[in-house]
Amino acid sequence: MSESNDAKNVSAYGQIRSIGKSTNIAWHHSTITKAEINEKNDHRSSILWFTGLSGSGKSTLANAVHRKLFERSIHSYVLDGDNIRHGINQDLGFSDQDRVENIRRVGEIARLFADAGMITLTAFVSPFRDDREQVRQLVKKNGGSTEDFIEIYCNADLKVCEGRDTKGLYEKARSGIIPNFTGITSPYEEPECPELDIDTGSKSLVDCVEQILKYLELKGAIPAK
Amino acid sequence: MSESNDAKNVSAYGQIRSIGKSTNIAWHHSTITKAEINEKNDHRSSILWFTGLSGSGKSTLANAVHRKLFERSIHSYVLDGDNIRHGINQDLGFSDQDRVENIRRVGEIARLFADAGMITLTAFVSPFRDDREQVRQLVKKNGGSTEDFIEIYCNADLKVCEGRDTKGLYEKARSGIIPNFTGITSPYEEPECPELDIDTGSKSLVDCVEQILKYLELKGAIPAK
Repeated sequence: MSESNDAKNVSAYGQIRSIGKSTNIAWHHSTITKAEINEKNDHRSSILWFTGLSGSGKSTLANAVHRKLFERSIHSYVLDGDNIRHGINQDLGFSDQDRVENIRRVGEIARLFADAGMITLTAFVSPFRDDREQVRQLVKKNGGSTEDFIEIYCNADLKVCEGRDTKGLYEKARSGIIPNFTGITSPYEEPECPELDIDTGSKSLVDCVEQILKYLELKGAIPAK
Repeated sequence: MSESNDAKNVSAYGQIRSIGKSTNIAWHHSTITKAEINEKNDHRSSILWFTGLSGSGKSTLANAVHRKLFERSIHSYVLDGDNIRHGINQDLGFSDQDRVENIRRVGEIARLFADAGMITLTAFVSPFRDDREQVRQLVKKNGGSTEDFIEIYCNADLKVCEGRDTKGLYEKARSGIIPNFTGITSPYEEPECPELDIDTGSKSLVDCVEQILKYLELKGAIPAK
């Protein structure tokens, strides 16, 4: 149980005002607040939660926004299948339970990044309303405001997404080789009130990126250009 | 299986040079390299892995270093029991298996933060050599250099740590109320070649912090003051 004990001990440890031979040295936590970080960074931390069908452009759009934010010296990071499914979530399969756990962990990691002052962009199908709502509540529960969670619906017709099927995943889903494929044999629950509803089916990437940046500026999350 | 499919699709999607009606707009990943981030930040990303007994000062020291780095505009973040055990790892108990999984996830999250350009400070007992070595290898495997993982041994006698036992955890361990307590009924495997061996038992906090900052400067991880 030592990790837990350690955690408890460390919390209490903040009250100790002396250590070893140096009894007049205060050893206590000096946790830096999010307000301090935001002030230094000159932008707010937040979570941009991209959701949508396979092929709707979530990861591409998230990475393009990331690039623009980086050019403006705004601290941001993209969490997607590449760095999550092959890393921390490599122990998870694709059962319903594991898919819920996948999104829960992504939400928790996004929260840590937000706590560190970053704008975190997550790009996962995340087809279920409940799971997305759970992450939104997690952010609020941890002292964030509702403005810290921005749900971005990459809204493209199934036909368009299927048309972009370079790896043949939709084809495999149609022929039954891949079971439980979102949009084909598993439901995608559209966001009811997303902060942003982006027509990634027909708008250009440049326009989609612009729509997101303008929104962030409008909400005061990043400085106006 | 949609998340996995999505991940695969998104990776392939980077090769698509058109989308929807805008066939001449390239939708592809523009992943920002760690080199680009380090250059903009003017410091290297790395993982400072604090290890040591309960009460050895890991979290206090990590937070004090965090404060100093913050004052020097160096991007850093502390992962400890407070934000990990109560967040992403709340599903884990304290069986041997769960403790290994706890450290694995911390390692993976630290890697993500490092990938985002941060200096990540982790403060966990992490009593087993194998687990710490696994994280070191993880960093190397992901394109990091050996200098990106800095093992910091908070080296304080059990007597000193037990003397700081404000929550009575050591007492509970001694009386058998808490089983498997590191240093009492469960082993702590001392680091054999830590990058830093810090005498947190008798040195002042200020001196300990200075030792770490000097090391980071010497290694070129942060600019010299």
